Amino acid sequence: MDKNVKISPFTREKEYKDRGRLLVKCPDRPGIVAAISKFLADHQANIIESSQYSNDPEGGTFFIRIEFDCPQLVEKQAAMEADFKELADTFSMDYQFTYAEDRKRTAIFVSKEPHCLLELLWEWQSGDLPTDIALVVSNHEDARGMVESLGIPFYYIPANKDIRKQVEQEQIALLKEHDIDLIVLARYMQILTSDFVSAFPNQIINIHHSFLPAFIGARPYERAHSRGVKLIGATSHYVTNDLDEGPIIEQDIERVNHRDDVMDLKKIGRSIERRVLARAVKWHLEDRVIVHENKTIVFQ
Amino acid sequence: MDKNVKISPFTREKEYKDRGRLLVKCPDRPGIVAAISKFLADHQANIIESSQYSNDPEGGTFFIRIEFDCPQLVEKQAAMEADFKELADTFSMDYQFTYAEDRKRTAIFVSKEPHCLLELLWEWQSGDLPTDIALVVSNHEDARGMVESLGIPFYYIPANKDIRKQVEQEQIALLKEHDIDLIVLARYMQILTSDFVSAFPNQIINIHHSFLPAFIGARPYERAHSRGVKLIGATSHYVTNDLDEGPIIEQDIERVNHRDDVMDLKKIGRSIERRVLARAVKWHLEDRVIVHENKTIVFQ
Amino acid sequence: MDKNVKISPFTREKEYKDRGRLLVKCPDRPGIVAAISKFLADHQANIIESSQYSNDPEGGTFFIRIEFDCPQLVEKQAAMEADFKELADTFSMDYQFTYAEDRKRTAIFVSKEPHCLLELLWEWQSGDLPTDIALVVSNHEDARGMVESLGIPFYYIPANKDIRKQVEQEQIALLKEHDIDLIVLARYMQILTSDFVSAFPNQIINIHHSFLPAFIGARPYERAHSRGVKLIGATSHYVTNDLDEGPIIEQDIERVNHRDDVMDLKKIGRSIERRVLARAVKWHLEDRVIVHENKTIVFQ
Amino acid sequence: MDKNVKISPFTREKEYKDRGRLLVKCPDRPGIVAAISKFLADHQANIIESSQYSNDPEGGTFFIRIEFDCPQLVEKQAAMEADFKELADTFSMDYQFTYAEDRKRTAIFVSKEPHCLLELLWEWQSGDLPTDIALVVSNHEDARGMVESLGIPFYYIPANKDIRKQVEQEQIALLKEHDIDLIVLARYMQILTSDFVSAFPNQIINIHHSFLPAFIGARPYERAHSRGVKLIGATSHYVTNDLDEGPIIEQDIERVNHRDDVMDLKKIGRSIERRVLARAVKWHLEDRVIVHENKTIVFQ
Repeated sequence: MDKNVKISPFTREKEYKDRGRLLVKCPDRPGIVAAISKFLADHQANIIESSQYSNDPEGGTFFIRIEFDCPQLVEKQAAMEADFKELADTFSMDYQFTYAEDRKRTAIFVSKEPHCLLELLWEWQSGDLPTDIALVVSNHEDARGMVESLGIPFYYIPANKDIRKQVEQEQIALLKEHDIDLIVLARYMQILTSDFVSAFPNQIINIHHSFLPAFIGARPYERAHSRGVKLIGATSHYVTNDLDEGPIIEQDIERVNHRDDVMDLKKIGRSIERRVLARAVKWHLEDRVIVHENKTIVFQ
Repeated sequence: MDKNVKISPFTREKEYKDRGRLLVKCPDRPGIVAAISKFLADHQANIIESSQYSNDPEGGTFFIRIEFDCPQLVEKQAAMEADFKELADTFSMDYQFTYAEDRKRTAIFVSKEPHCLLELLWEWQSGDLPTDIALVVSNHEDARGMVESLGIPFYYIPANKDIRKQVEQEQIALLKEHDIDLIVLARYMQILTSDFVSAFPNQIINIHHSFLPAFIGARPYERAHSRGVKLIGATSHYVTNDLDEGPIIEQDIERVNHRDDVMDLKKIGRSIERRVLARAVKWHLEDRVIVHENKTIVFQ
Repeated sequence: MDKNVKISPFTREKEYKDRGRLLVKCPDRPGIVAAISKFLADHQANIIESSQYSNDPEGGTFFIRIEFDCPQLVEKQAAMEADFKELADTFSMDYQFTYAEDRKRTAIFVSKEPHCLLELLWEWQSGDLPTDIALVVSNHEDARGMVESLGIPFYYIPANKDIRKQVEQEQIALLKEHDIDLIVLARYMQILTSDFVSAFPNQIINIHHSFLPAFIGARPYERAHSRGVKLIGATSHYVTNDLDEGPIIEQDIERVNHRDDVMDLKKIGRSIERRVLARAVKWHLEDRVIVHENKTIVFQ
Repeated sequence: MDKNVKISPFTREKEYKDRGRLLVKCPDRPGIVAAISKFLADHQANIIESSQYSNDPEGGTFFIRIEFDCPQLVEKQAAMEADFKELADTFSMDYQFTYAEDRKRTAIFVSKEPHCLLELLWEWQSGDLPTDIALVVSNHEDARGMVESLGIPFYYIPANKDIRKQVEQEQIALLKEHDIDLIVLARYMQILTSDFVSAFPNQIINIHHSFLPAFIGARPYERAHSRGVKLIGATSHYVTNDLDEGPIIEQDIERVNHRDDVMDLKKIGRSIERRVLARAVKWHLEDRVIVHENKTIVFQ
């Protein structure tokens, strides 16, 4: 469907066809790195980047992300994964292999304000979001022209709280049909039901327009102005069933002062929102984020 | 008492003996700037720096801060202030003249952790806090050596919530005796009663170890760690009777990540706290801060 | 010509029809502010924002920028300017009145890389660049589609050093015909002759892809990588006949590390370039920048 | 000699007695990580933190830093190092084992301005510089009181360019006698001869008061002011025989504006200098910095 997508001439796509990634979470104990790196060496995989973290070297949880190159990876990956099971059992690992060749498929949800959508499209056109943007869903028609001009399908699905269940069924069907891996709420402004959220665990990224946990909920810029804060921020997080309480992926802030009225805060906020969301989406797409107990480990 | 205070050889004290400042707050209407600047010109005062702000040009409140030089200011200031009354009445002004020659007298309250105290002393020694540090009050003896080595009187007054009233009476007596203009709570860690706060309106500056309004109250670093935030901050504000709710003067943040445990957050936080507090104190001492409806106008 | 330009629905245009600005540069002496503010009050102009600076209160140069509202400004402005001459003579002022109603007319020059052009168009569509973008000139066809879709005329003028004189004559004719006030070199990549530069004094803004004066000249990212710097930057400046030596308007930086190769630096650099240029252009359009002796005073 | 050094009660010293670090540089090829991690596992060492980098996966140089815990490390370290030789030969490694128990010994050189010295002492007292500060050397007496009050020996050695050779011989003797691992030039302001520099390769850290390579050489703040830059910076680097051209470890900047005169720039610069130097010294002490071809790899 998106085979004809035009990529701008400024695209940077390094040659990644033999690039794989391995993410592991398991109880910490000596020997994990040795076992994994021996396994990879035995399979002719060369470690390009490796990041690890243990939340407590004595009895905590161990996390590792390894990026590797391996000749003929496409042919070998099934066997490699099969072989890994024994090692994974020995260390009681939660793990996941991913391959740069298998680009994740992303859906972007947007409402009227286009700034976050535009930033994602811009990063994607520049070759900096390694994904296929499979579709854009909106409860307004505003963004159609821009989206379709890039060869991306645009679905207008009106939404409000009275028809939420039915709208979500339509959306879920569409997402399944397009085989979507990641949903980005680029200022979508509609609350999702727990049914929707549960269907995509740790696969929905939202941008909240405040420095959470300050100003949870509605109208954060108005409340920031009223409190007289000297910095405003934005927060990108995975969506869970607790509103604005999901695992935080990224946050950033900018300085404001007494001269900035609510409209100024919103304007400044938009530039924070777009970069915070773009970073979080990029890290997710590169498999740099592991969720653990409502927090994230981000291996930059 | 502090006549023998040693100032380091790196002190920078520009020659400010003829330097005055005028702060005005009044209903906004045309002609205010013209009237004030004519007044100053008629009194041979040359405007060096002028900042103004109106929260609503139609029917709002107007604020101005003017810094001026005037030959023989010391001799003239009484007459100038007397002359200004008529103009002030015309425009229903709240106003205040201050003079760089009349250095404000500051008391610093500290508990066990010395980092904020040290930063203030360092800035003061470098000539960057235009004040006399008249005394340091602490409920611990730890800082005595350092403070007294600079020629500053140190008062050890044990404090806890059971003896709060009596302790505060002793403190207030000391502050009155020393003719104190500003009280800085440099991580003092004791709650002040409303009697104490009311005795020094907009004259008590506190440093709170979070990015308010996030993590109001106790143990903010522990709660920040538990929430998994990606930035931590500090907030300097005037103390009012609503805990952590006073007008914010300055805030700043630093980036943290999943590797930082609570001790790391506290360590990083200390460096934010010291610079945020030092900036707020400096702006207050230079009469750059006007409080209006629980917010601050800061004329940097 | 650009009457049909579509502004996005997110545009913010405060009502500025009675808004004027006065910029003054003159020898410093007492009474300037009083004289100007009396003049404005006598002409029913209400000062909204005022910023001043003197590079030496004793015998230096004085600068002031005043933003004012005045009922029926359009009808009054000619008389006001005529009246001001006497005061200007008294104080030997260089001065300039501008009016928010008279939007400046901007030409953007671009080469192949579109990121700076896109940022300007985005800011302009959002209502944050108070200007008419009258035309875009490029030595490549790449940006035509995007520019024309916004209703902005696009001129393709091939350029290289062999045909520079002739190309510039064509460009100057076009700029005169379109009555251009500001030329923005949004990564134009061609050197301008002194004839061209002299035709538009302090009216050409360039973005240089380094933190000047580091890495003056060509290939700054390659040289930054080779030197192993830990920060890279960008610089926006007025173009003069000394290459990369014109008055600096704005600079910013971002952190890099040993993992970033030259392509990474360019990518990171693009995001710095676009925000640095957008800020400089905005400040210029709001008459916030005064050039003095190869430096800028920027009244933010 | 510094056995009696008082550490403040705020010191944080995690228990690191079984903590070792391994730094390796070698030609990149598959299997290095597997070989090293197997070696460590075979020696009962548990990897706590591991960072690696290859400047070119095909035929480049590979770098790794591993931090590990190993029971009874003190007793085992000689055997472990002996065993490692075979593996090191196989991969043509440059390598180094270090042990947290063996705290590096640091000498600080200072001239008149104390801000960088004070910052280092403050970080050290807070337990954040894992080193023994064995002595302070100065060509002025100013800092003696402060240094000796902390139990650190202070050596006053007058210096100027006429007596440089002889002064350096005295200094080198002192440094050898104190078994110094690291020399920090905390605004020492004297040029060192190539004899001195060659005696301590990659062991001398300097702070330069500009954002190198801008303003190499003398009087950077004066030249920054004259050029009208909008940001000023500082650079910490290893000292080589090319003045201000050694490998950069860390840089940072702050924003300035037209109001800041040269004295203001120096003041702002001091706060940048102290934090940039403190970070660089800390990273060096934690063995996080590898020098390669006049650049640094910093494994944060």
